[in-house]
Amino acid sequence: MRHIRLSLVGFGVVGQGFAKLIMTKHDFLKQYYGVDINLVGVANARYGFVYRQDGLHIPAVLQLAKERSPLKNYPGATHWDSALEGLQASRANILVEVTPTNLHDAEPGMSHIRTALAKGMHVVTANKGPAALAANELISLAHQHGVQMRMESTVMAGTPVISTIREGMAGSQVFAMRGILNGTTNYILSEMAEGSDYVEALEDAQSKGYAETDPTADVEGYDAVAKTLILAALIFGRTLKPEQVVREGITAITREQIQKVIDQDKRMKLIASLQMVSDGDGKKTMLDARVEPTILPLTDPLARVDGVTNALTIHADTLSEVTIMGPGAGSIQTGQGLLADVLACVR
Amino acid sequence: MRHIRLSLVGFGVVGQGFAKLIMTKHDFLKQYYGVDINLVGVANARYGFVYRQDGLHIPAVLQLAKERSPLKNYPGATHWDSALEGLQASRANILVEVTPTNLHDAEPGMSHIRTALAKGMHVVTANKGPAALAANELISLAHQHGVQMRMESTVMAGTPVISTIREGMAGSQVFAMRGILNGTTNYILSEMAEGSDYVEALEDAQSKGYAETDPTADVEGYDAVAKTLILAALIFGRTLKPEQVVREGITAITREQIQKVIDQDKRMKLIASLQMVSDGDGKKTMLDARVEPTILPLTDPLARVDGVTNALTIHADTLSEVTIMGPGAGSIQTGQGLLADVLACVR
Repeated sequence: MRHIRLSLVGFGVVGQGFAKLIMTKHDFLKQYYGVDINLVGVANARYGFVYRQDGLHIPAVLQLAKERSPLKNYPGATHWDSALEGLQASRANILVEVTPTNLHDAEPGMSHIRTALAKGMHVVTANKGPAALAANELISLAHQHGVQMRMESTVMAGTPVISTIREGMAGSQVFAMRGILNGTTNYILSEMAEGSDYVEALEDAQSKGYAETDPTADVEGYDAVAKTLILAALIFGRTLKPEQVVREGITAITREQIQKVIDQDKRMKLIASLQMVSDGDGKKTMLDARVEPTILPLTDPLARVDGVTNALTIHADTLSEVTIMGPGAGSIQTGQGLLADVLACVR
Repeated sequence: MRHIRLSLVGFGVVGQGFAKLIMTKHDFLKQYYGVDINLVGVANARYGFVYRQDGLHIPAVLQLAKERSPLKNYPGATHWDSALEGLQASRANILVEVTPTNLHDAEPGMSHIRTALAKGMHVVTANKGPAALAANELISLAHQHGVQMRMESTVMAGTPVISTIREGMAGSQVFAMRGILNGTTNYILSEMAEGSDYVEALEDAQSKGYAETDPTADVEGYDAVAKTLILAALIFGRTLKPEQVVREGITAITREQIQKVIDQDKRMKLIASLQMVSDGDGKKTMLDARVEPTILPLTDPLARVDGVTNALTIHADTLSEVTIMGPGAGSIQTGQGLLADVLACVR
């Protein structure tokens, strides 16, 4: 039996979902993976970091969150005012970092992750900020300290794409990929294909909780750009800046344009694409990166991916074309990706 | 740099394809994975096992195979009359076993694999016989000897499904899966959907090299049954016998039946399925396993998988539905799966 001490920084929807998952699966994970996961630290932005050497009782921590009661009310736990202080002062094997995504400077996630790696902790994250802005730097830092830095959940939540390409397809060379990486916009385009106009479809997505009150990050393509940056770094080894990704959102698309595409037996999707291209004299390669509405023939596996489902098609030297489809969001689905990464750190 | 000594047993299309792959990718694998793969032993059924302590020159071995010259003509190599003797007497870190599939008693692959595992070698195989009849027994034997037993290529060739479910989706519990696991029958059904009758479609598949002269193993569903047994063992932990899989092939399907299905906006596919079901009093679960022609609505991701492409949809507690599509055969594609497994043994 491997005993794993885990600290969880970020205790919103994703963090609480992950805590529930390791609670309900605790005995199963012991039995099938020989791993006994013990949550020793929990932090959120508002109430700082609580830590208990012998482990926190997950239902009690969830109850505090539900009551919006400060985490420091947990009886018998040590408390620090910030997650960073707590991470510095406490001891755990793995940090699960799930604070909100910040695509400007990736804070506070970046500092949490750097601190944990420097202390020799494995880090697992669903936070797209550090992954999009500094994936390879953080992986190098992890290597220096002999630990892993994993980020499966940052792209398509727990649907395994990063591990599938990096490990399941190890030895192959990927030269291009195309994907539907944002469920909100795919839902809106699917509804428009069924007859809604853009505003109706957006309101429908908002009422179902798929789109936020300010939908900009999704509908203007910024969320898909972040995921494109993550794949560029992890699969192609290229660190791109956000402005190096050609970006066009879906706000200008009309119902009429979509109908015209359908009448030609095609579909319009917001496609994120990455492709290695040679420069003029063929000596150097560059990575062309785009997020833009794209017309696909029905023979394309991505054409039939509707609703909030995500999908990614990978073109590799030894496998022509592989497509992976699955959920791209949700607290349980994201928690699943975090859990798979935790188990990979232990393996 | 990790130095890996590899023996390859089975030197037909798949074995030669794998040898070419590790030859052409040798420098890439050193650079990106820090792994230096050295082929030290090669065997085929006809000419026995050749071994060279310092490594065999792959182009020279391929040349012997091309000329149908006995492997023992390799200059300066040690030779044994059988692969089994050679494996016993020689030394390598990993066995890649790719002798032909035998679904009756899994020999000679089974003996090769048992011998290698007992000697403390990792084993990687594309041979469906041992995987279908004894996957869990072989994995236990590997654990006892502190090595890995991997078989990614036995299902959907190098398209990563086994590693994706066991590792990429680690921590999730799979309760059902449905797949198109045989490219030959899917090609025939796709051609019939385009207007061919069964005999025309079969002859077309044969002329393209997708179907064998005796197509029984494919068209009667035996190949898909073997893959179903492998998934039952590896994903559900259940060792089923071939006769426990309900099996119906595609030979009785008419062009008229297929057209009727198309007219209803549906598709007919040969679907392999595995599903956990409760028995009467709900106390025990059993695994329902089937390979049979199945009518699918167009909203099913498998409905649109045409030609020789394979696909598998996985239903799991934390991920609802994940689908993986990709090539299911081919020497390079199978070699890719073997290579990914080799790299996983080293990781």
